[in-house]
Amino acid sequence: MAGTSIISIASPADFHVHLRQGDLSNLVTPHVSQGGFHLAYPNLKPPITTTAAALAYKRSLQSICPSTHFLMTLYLSPDLTPAEIRTAKEAGIVGVKSYPRGVTTNSEGGIENYEMYYPVFEAMQEVGMVLNLHGEVPSDPTTNTHILNAEPSFLPHLIKLHQTFPNLRIVLEHATTRAAVDVVKSLGPTVGCTITAHHLALTVDDWAGQSWNYCKPVAKYPDDREALREVIREGHPRFFLGSDSAPHPPHTKSTSAPSSSCAAGIYTSPILLPLVAHLLEEFGALDRLEGFVSTFGRDFYKVEGQGGKVTLRKVEGRKVEERWALGGESVIPFWAGKKLGWEIIENGV
Amino acid sequence: MAGTSIISIASPADFHVHLRQGDLSNLVTPHVSQGGFHLAYPNLKPPITTTAAALAYKRSLQSICPSTHFLMTLYLSPDLTPAEIRTAKEAGIVGVKSYPRGVTTNSEGGIENYEMYYPVFEAMQEVGMVLNLHGEVPSDPTTNTHILNAEPSFLPHLIKLHQTFPNLRIVLEHATTRAAVDVVKSLGPTVGCTITAHHLALTVDDWAGQSWNYCKPVAKYPDDREALREVIREGHPRFFLGSDSAPHPPHTKSTSAPSSSCAAGIYTSPILLPLVAHLLEEFGALDRLEGFVSTFGRDFYKVEGQGGKVTLRKVEGRKVEERWALGGESVIPFWAGKKLGWEIIENGV
Repeated sequence: MAGTSIISIASPADFHVHLRQGDLSNLVTPHVSQGGFHLAYPNLKPPITTTAAALAYKRSLQSICPSTHFLMTLYLSPDLTPAEIRTAKEAGIVGVKSYPRGVTTNSEGGIENYEMYYPVFEAMQEVGMVLNLHGEVPSDPTTNTHILNAEPSFLPHLIKLHQTFPNLRIVLEHATTRAAVDVVKSLGPTVGCTITAHHLALTVDDWAGQSWNYCKPVAKYPDDREALREVIREGHPRFFLGSDSAPHPPHTKSTSAPSSSCAAGIYTSPILLPLVAHLLEEFGALDRLEGFVSTFGRDFYKVEGQGGKVTLRKVEGRKVEERWALGGESVIPFWAGKKLGWEIIENGV
Repeated sequence: MAGTSIISIASPADFHVHLRQGDLSNLVTPHVSQGGFHLAYPNLKPPITTTAAALAYKRSLQSICPSTHFLMTLYLSPDLTPAEIRTAKEAGIVGVKSYPRGVTTNSEGGIENYEMYYPVFEAMQEVGMVLNLHGEVPSDPTTNTHILNAEPSFLPHLIKLHQTFPNLRIVLEHATTRAAVDVVKSLGPTVGCTITAHHLALTVDDWAGQSWNYCKPVAKYPDDREALREVIREGHPRFFLGSDSAPHPPHTKSTSAPSSSCAAGIYTSPILLPLVAHLLEEFGALDRLEGFVSTFGRDFYKVEGQGGKVTLRKVEGRKVEERWALGGESVIPFWAGKKLGWEIIENGV
């Protein structure tokens, strides 16, 4: 694809994004479309545990951006029942997300005791819902578990879940390690994996002393980043984009005192497609762009394409905005002030 | 030593500390003594490459703190000659420091090409000067070298230097890994190792998103921290304190924008002895305090005790100051606002 200066692809889908509530949601929800994506699968804190709440949140997002297609999820918690799974499915809810609670209640080795959810997973498998896993175990100095091996330490749980529910579609979210890539590749066709844009760019050296590059899972070693790049170059159809783009008020990303840590999260939504094109071109995978951002994820989730084609043009270097603001809220994006080699010229909706 | 409430030890010595120049030096140099230490072995940037410059710097420090004993070093650079080593020795200079240049000139695998310095090392071995090594290789994504394996990757250079100059005293500075501890233990009696206070407290989880805990070398994994604690509990005489205490203006420790990284360094000088006592007590090594902070280092450097005994008293919890300031300069210490279990009640000079 050397020399390509125009790329036109099927409508991109972001299978992991944070769109918040209230004023911040008003600011960031339109950025999904601005970044070239017309399908979003949002996370929310506080977690959504009922179908009614998920539908209410969907209406709120849809009122901000009528042209974006929102797929909704529930949060895995002890309140969730097989009956609620069936209700959710009928209402169009697509999946259930599990992420660390940061507490030890109901946990086994620091993560959810998944066995208590087996009836729920059974129902999900039956109706065809997707289980989304934040694949990290909590740090524990006594077992030498820390933020850099938290993901590899989680993988046995993924393997066990897949073996127990081979027909349940499971997505390992925001993979960051070669170990995760290898395990997902080794599993059956029902196991997929999202990769963020920023984990294709960063390594541990980049967030050391630079809190704006700090996110969870943290970016790992160069060889791990290389594994993420390789699986995209290879065009593996079970690996697709989930940006995990997370807006944070700028003051929460700065550590002004030793007593307070900064918020974990990197914001890529408004520049997402040009950024991904830029990165894929850098590591020789530009010909995999459409699969990675558009078709692979839609195929795995079994959702039809929504919206028209999106067209990018190669440019000399388009500067990323330093900040976006609306109604008292503001966000600073990843690569603020840096230059991207691609821009959107046709954002078909 | 359970139940001990008063500890009196031979005068502590800090074998690695940053004392700066100008106004900042006026603020921080007295903190060495305030922290219970009466011998300091300072680093300086810009590096000191001549005996005359080292003696001038010593006079400057001595004029700020006449009661503190300062041991001086030169910086390893191509300007250094065997003749200058002999001049330095006669003038009372104790060692030569080598730390990464961050450039590739004169480098071999990213570090100094030590072979070009063999005549200098030969002279140092002959006159009995100490070689201080910052033991890290630069990051290189193509070889999967990053800030977390930079120290283990350096160790073959340490081994080779020791084998080539078995009578040259070498100190591996601020060790942070089990690999470094194991290698130093395996080498002969001429190889010593300093350990900082903050590396006894922190792991990688603590500097993720918290730039005030960011230093070079970065704190590593829990098992590495455990290795540092073990070798102190063991009372190994070639492992002793070098705080690497480094004052930075507070604004340089905060990352207010994605474009600027924060300064690497942690400031412990004004609370050093109570902090070390607190930490050693926490991991069951309080009975090794005197060896670790006073006698082991002095024995290795062959310097007599300077100053009288220092006495600590156990306290319920003495709050660390939030900030020290003088003449427009200010510093925020490690553990600002946290409580320490020991305080100095007799600071014999």
